[in-house]
Amino acid sequence: MADFAKTQQITFKNELYLESGRLLSPVTVAYETYGTLNTAKDNAILICHALTGSAHAAGFHKPGGPPGWWNDMIGPGKAFDTDQYFIICSNILGSCYGTTGPVSIDPFTGKHYGRKFPVITVKDMVKVQKRLIDHLGVDILYSAAGGSLGGMQVLEWAVTYPDKIRSAVAISTAGRITPMAIAFNTIARFAITKDPNYNGGDYYGGTPPKDGLAIGRMAGHITYLSDAAFNRKFGRRYATFEGIYDFNGFFEVENYLRHNGYKFTERFDANTYLYLLKAMDIFDLTYEYSSFEEAVARIKAKMLFITFSSDFLFPAYQTKELTMLMEKAGNRPEWVQIESDYGHDAFLLEFDEQTEAIKAFLK
Amino acid sequence: MADFAKTQQITFKNELYLESGRLLSPVTVAYETYGTLNTAKDNAILICHALTGSAHAAGFHKPGGPPGWWNDMIGPGKAFDTDQYFIICSNILGSCYGTTGPVSIDPFTGKHYGRKFPVITVKDMVKVQKRLIDHLGVDILYSAAGGSLGGMQVLEWAVTYPDKIRSAVAISTAGRITPMAIAFNTIARFAITKDPNYNGGDYYGGTPPKDGLAIGRMAGHITYLSDAAFNRKFGRRYATFEGIYDFNGFFEVENYLRHNGYKFTERFDANTYLYLLKAMDIFDLTYEYSSFEEAVARIKAKMLFITFSSDFLFPAYQTKELTMLMEKAGNRPEWVQIESDYGHDAFLLEFDEQTEAIKAFLK
Repeated sequence: MADFAKTQQITFKNELYLESGRLLSPVTVAYETYGTLNTAKDNAILICHALTGSAHAAGFHKPGGPPGWWNDMIGPGKAFDTDQYFIICSNILGSCYGTTGPVSIDPFTGKHYGRKFPVITVKDMVKVQKRLIDHLGVDILYSAAGGSLGGMQVLEWAVTYPDKIRSAVAISTAGRITPMAIAFNTIARFAITKDPNYNGGDYYGGTPPKDGLAIGRMAGHITYLSDAAFNRKFGRRYATFEGIYDFNGFFEVENYLRHNGYKFTERFDANTYLYLLKAMDIFDLTYEYSSFEEAVARIKAKMLFITFSSDFLFPAYQTKELTMLMEKAGNRPEWVQIESDYGHDAFLLEFDEQTEAIKAFLK
Repeated sequence: MADFAKTQQITFKNELYLESGRLLSPVTVAYETYGTLNTAKDNAILICHALTGSAHAAGFHKPGGPPGWWNDMIGPGKAFDTDQYFIICSNILGSCYGTTGPVSIDPFTGKHYGRKFPVITVKDMVKVQKRLIDHLGVDILYSAAGGSLGGMQVLEWAVTYPDKIRSAVAISTAGRITPMAIAFNTIARFAITKDPNYNGGDYYGGTPPKDGLAIGRMAGHITYLSDAAFNRKFGRRYATFEGIYDFNGFFEVENYLRHNGYKFTERFDANTYLYLLKAMDIFDLTYEYSSFEEAVARIKAKMLFITFSSDFLFPAYQTKELTMLMEKAGNRPEWVQIESDYGHDAFLLEFDEQTEAIKAFLK
């Protein structure tokens, strides 16, 4: 792309009816677009980011700046080809990268929402994305794609707006997460809320709960890898062997967790993390329907599911169930299982096979 | 057993040379015995407990009291038959159930050791067990058995004292733990040491770091189960659905982790937890030798390995490697893989198949 990517913002003043029954306004959405909307307005693809992502999915904001989080997948000739498609990526509702969330200023108090922010759901995120594409003049999405929490948004789109989406790519995801995944999120929840600096969520202007957030993120990092990835990446190598017989000796794996856990606290907000984990935990495609069958029977979009063999956070059997139920309902979903030992992180690392599958699918 | 089990203690005054090079004395050992040592003194079996176990492996201390941690496996007619064998179980070095550890009083200061306690290793634990069996008049063990960290002690016995042990049962264990297992222990390490009540390990007489220890234990509980066990035990059921749209709604799995995490803090000491995790992390059968080959080639004992199909903390491929190397060295180990969805916890839950395998093995 010749130009640099730029995050834009749009503020919707009309009230957003949340799944919880609460109302939220105004709602600001941060988003980026790549490529050009054609005159028929039928070439738009919505890219949905995962837990801690942002609208910056592709390109660079400045020379030498960090690339977008899915830059290997979005661009001219790439899986999501900006020569053909108009790509939209927005920061999800509740996040801290420019879209309204716990860090935003509550217009009623003039202070950060913090824990006064309403609990939001994946459906709420998708409703906000719908507003955005309406604003951009897109009536029907050519496709939507995303992994993990992004894949949940994709599924929610297909079920909630069956007539507004022609195809969808759901990667490393599920119609609801497993209790084991909730268990990992529980570690993060306790680590953050028990950090004395958390102060009931009211830490803005003070010291944020860095230890708690870092520990929570460490638990997350375990779930993003796999046993094989741990063996390959770290083995039992020492970062500091010197102190093996005291508490100053560290394995490389500990160093990795510490480094990434604390680095994360420089870019992410603890309340936001709690709200987004909560949205992930309570996401359940069946909530409004009597069953998965009934939910997926609503889907009209052509679906592509991608899973990775070593992903234990979103095991392939969940996708197997969804595709079987879709077939039962007369839909013909595609499902590509990619052999990879990268674990859940694979959707951010295994580009070649994903690109191949997605290009073929998008035609 | 007609009589009630009773924990006894013996104190060794002579210095213990630790693997770290440091010296420790005195060393008190808490232990229990069941059954009778025969006149040939060749029917003793050492039971080695796991991370947070105690010497109380079997029977009851009082009417209606809690049974020993492996009561289903030890007793008349059971896997470890007290009509035939003299069973010994001692609390490991560094623990907090009567054997010398960080909670003990440092004779040089008159205060709890706390973080002044030396880092101890599995070999150190085994050295102390050797002193105990010498004290009990046992020259050669008929067998040693244990799961998890207990299994590591069993392996260490077989490698370090090849002429003092005739057979060994190593369950759900490994010659060294995986980096993924170290990652889980890292969560516990950070959670405990970052709890302000931890106070650098000097919290005796003050408020112990309950939150940190509870969070660390929650991470442990994830590793003791399996994806299937989480699904079966909890599914996505709510303990409190009421608050689903705020932070008061809890899934059952969260309730389980919270309850067991905090209950654990009533019975276990945070420093002790850190020391025992450390011993687990740095345990490596190859440390004194050039390779696993060389280490296991020392083993003369007849070995039985037991693994469980869903144990992701101690994957079966580790036992496969050990048994292959033993076979290469001319030993003929037995290995029983039990199908179970209980995960790592299976060795404390799957009694029938373990009993069958162990009875056949012990002859």
